[in-house]
Amino acid sequence: MNFRSPIKHCRECGTAVVYRLPDDGDTRERAVCPACHTVHYENPLNVVGTVPVWGEQVLLCKRNIEPRKGKWTLPAGFMELGETTAEGAARETDEEAGAQIQMLDLFTVMNVVRVGQVHLYYRATLLSDRFNPGYETQEARLYHEADIPWDELAFRTVRETLLCFFADRRRGRFELHTLDIG
Amino acid sequence: MNFRSPIKHCRECGTAVVYRLPDDGDTRERAVCPACHTVHYENPLNVVGTVPVWGEQVLLCKRNIEPRKGKWTLPAGFMELGETTAEGAARETDEEAGAQIQMLDLFTVMNVVRVGQVHLYYRATLLSDRFNPGYETQEARLYHEADIPWDELAFRTVRETLLCFFADRRRGRFELHTLDIG
Repeated sequence: MNFRSPIKHCRECGTAVVYRLPDDGDTRERAVCPACHTVHYENPLNVVGTVPVWGEQVLLCKRNIEPRKGKWTLPAGFMELGETTAEGAARETDEEAGAQIQMLDLFTVMNVVRVGQVHLYYRATLLSDRFNPGYETQEARLYHEADIPWDELAFRTVRETLLCFFADRRRGRFELHTLDIG
Repeated sequence: MNFRSPIKHCRECGTAVVYRLPDDGDTRERAVCPACHTVHYENPLNVVGTVPVWGEQVLLCKRNIEPRKGKWTLPAGFMELGETTAEGAARETDEEAGAQIQMLDLFTVMNVVRVGQVHLYYRATLLSDRFNPGYETQEARLYHEADIPWDELAFRTVRETLLCFFADRRRGRFELHTLDIG
């Protein structure tokens, strides 16, 4: 998808909106309500996830939902109101893999401008190799670097995060990586 | 404010929504349209900004708009669709201060859960000490550390970012700081 579909009706009063420059000096067209004058803002969304590590292995989840059903991903999903980025990443790891983790540092911050998203991944240490995947996941399993299904990964940000992870591990030092993905 | 006000009407068809658990296994109440079944998601927003540096001095802007009109801030604002976090930070620096900068590394990532925001600040080098503030700014000026108006700063995230900046500068090494603000 390219962004979300346009807003058609006012969230306050239900009147059909028009896209135009607001009257407050704003330089971008917004969905403005001609009846109650509510201005609707649409902004990028954060996707938060983890790189869960068990010894030499990394946990991947086989997706059971679209998009990319059947492809492999790191546990991740949309950040919710009422939680921090790290709390959201831990929640998604629990929901998608049923994995027990200790959260470590923020590891990748990636802009995916085409879809209006910022992806933030944290490194995490698995506290157990027993998983309990939720309905969004067909299978959760550990992969050694040599066995990572590179051609069957769900998202470019998962690939980039894994590449950064293995490169840093070889160097013996983890640091934050910021990337822009076309 | 605490988050945004609740959604009252469906963005697709204008019908009054109800907050309930959607039928897709989601575990959070969302604004769901009883007529066309659209589920409305509300998520945290990113605020992006810079720490613009000129020699020993840092650029601050005196706000000309609410909230915190008359208080001092680093240039920052809501990230927009169609831009990266760094592009948004540079745009805000241009809009609020009319400052010419070279962007440096991502410096702070701060969760402000109470208002549903993530603030991301980049360090930046000013290319000139001539500024051209927009309508959102009463005054843009350079401050030495000793002169920073700590009691007149607009936002806690500005204070924390400045504290991290001066501490790292004293140490002679800048690194990413992640903070959660109550």
